[in-house]
Amino acid sequence: MIDKVYGGIEAGGTKFVCAIGTSPDNLVKTQFATTSPDESIRKAIHFFKDHTRLKPLTAIGIASFGPLDIDKNSPTYGYITNTPKDSWSNVDIAQKIHSQLNVPVAIDTDVNGAALGEQVWGEAQGLDTFIYLTVGTGIGGGGMINGKLMHGLLHPEMGHIRIPHDWQKDPYKGCCPYHVDCLEGLASGKAMELRWGQSPEKLPFDHPAWELEASYLALAISNFICTISPQRNIVGGGLMKNPGLMPAVRRKVELNLNRYVRSEAITKDIDRYIVAPALGDLAGIVGALELAKRINQDIC
Amino acid sequence: MIDKVYGGIEAGGTKFVCAIGTSPDNLVKTQFATTSPDESIRKAIHFFKDHTRLKPLTAIGIASFGPLDIDKNSPTYGYITNTPKDSWSNVDIAQKIHSQLNVPVAIDTDVNGAALGEQVWGEAQGLDTFIYLTVGTGIGGGGMINGKLMHGLLHPEMGHIRIPHDWQKDPYKGCCPYHVDCLEGLASGKAMELRWGQSPEKLPFDHPAWELEASYLALAISNFICTISPQRNIVGGGLMKNPGLMPAVRRKVELNLNRYVRSEAITKDIDRYIVAPALGDLAGIVGALELAKRINQDIC
Repeated sequence: MIDKVYGGIEAGGTKFVCAIGTSPDNLVKTQFATTSPDESIRKAIHFFKDHTRLKPLTAIGIASFGPLDIDKNSPTYGYITNTPKDSWSNVDIAQKIHSQLNVPVAIDTDVNGAALGEQVWGEAQGLDTFIYLTVGTGIGGGGMINGKLMHGLLHPEMGHIRIPHDWQKDPYKGCCPYHVDCLEGLASGKAMELRWGQSPEKLPFDHPAWELEASYLALAISNFICTISPQRNIVGGGLMKNPGLMPAVRRKVELNLNRYVRSEAITKDIDRYIVAPALGDLAGIVGALELAKRINQDIC
Repeated sequence: MIDKVYGGIEAGGTKFVCAIGTSPDNLVKTQFATTSPDESIRKAIHFFKDHTRLKPLTAIGIASFGPLDIDKNSPTYGYITNTPKDSWSNVDIAQKIHSQLNVPVAIDTDVNGAALGEQVWGEAQGLDTFIYLTVGTGIGGGGMINGKLMHGLLHPEMGHIRIPHDWQKDPYKGCCPYHVDCLEGLASGKAMELRWGQSPEKLPFDHPAWELEASYLALAISNFICTISPQRNIVGGGLMKNPGLMPAVRRKVELNLNRYVRSEAITKDIDRYIVAPALGDLAGIVGALELAKRINQDIC
């Protein structure tokens, strides 16, 4: 018997996923393309109203694209802030959901949501310090440190670190509107598409694009390892669906670190140190449900 | 009246500092050059025995250079592990101190020690997520995230991240024995000395060396900001004694981030966002005393 009904929203730049449930194996969900804020939020509200006629929701969790304001003391808490995405700048997504469904709303970044999902149900069970990286149209990172989701001043923007750019091997200048050749500017799906003139899904698995992509991701992950010392690195997102990419990234991370970080987790078991999310594409929406469940806890 | 007597050791690659006391304003200390492990530890023991004849020590905290094994479940807990420093590899510093003074010993990295000192007495008071970076002969980083010192798998090795290396502007190849042109390989005091053929203290404040140094440190700090989202960045160490370096680093961090991370802490108040340690050179030894005080707490 389920006592409480939780809702989750994974608000992505290209699609919204909405779900009601309690676990990866016990949920009802729907998804639709992300359009305008008004239309997307209206569809989400409709889903929740439609599926909770018999029993009201206890809480909703939102795992959203950003940048987000997740400072609970801020006047713009729960807003998507300065996104370049059309019409989504300064949208108070948490308040809009809250005011129309009249339930408590928890909000965090999409990657922190996915990290929480993996900690409860996936690859990060039992860990207190790990990162979750998503590599798709853009690149984002989050995770937990010392048992709590990563927040700090705002929230991490791991996609925007600077990494070495070998101009001889890769004359493409980069596509980040803020930093040009930061990690996202060089290694996002958008960068791949602009560099090679075709969508990454269409690039054959043995195209040199993937070796370059593995190099950039490995540089970034090596930096995250040196900076945070995670117990595990979970790497999801659309680009990771190329089956050769993860093994190539692992090999290059080993070469980059060059046995300086002397942990057997890295030197002997890197296949378990850098892994795909166990929940796959469900990590985000399951994490959103977990955010709802923990709405009054200090984890978030 | 002081109930308990705490000891602290800041074990550095070039000098050992030993102290007994409770605060930056209430301590007795000594320092001596780091020589062999046996001799250095013998001198430390002598200091503590000599100063605690009337009242025994309650605990000792050690803030040590590394890499260190600080996993309390490890058989080599409290060891300095694979350091290139002569004769210090695989030295069980914590156990040697413990066995000769017969008091509980807490150990953490020198930078985590300094971070703790700054949180109790300095620039990080009231913060739960901040980094402490030291830029001297080598480069190291630590700090607190979500109110606890950074550990994770081992401990951070922030000096070993990869940053862009502009070979045209800086043909020096780098000096890290593991990674060649990582941050430490390009921007440590040792790298400066090898690149310019003289000790950094002797390089005039307006030498182009410092502009390059500021660029590298700013790239690293920008990466740490994007990765961790610290509430503040405390940067100490010998190279920071050049009074022009900190302002140049701040200006370049602002340029690197390019207003992408929209926090007024960065966009309006960077002089308070990237700061020198309030305790100056005392941060490490005061932090070592704080490690001793917290020996049974979960902060470490």
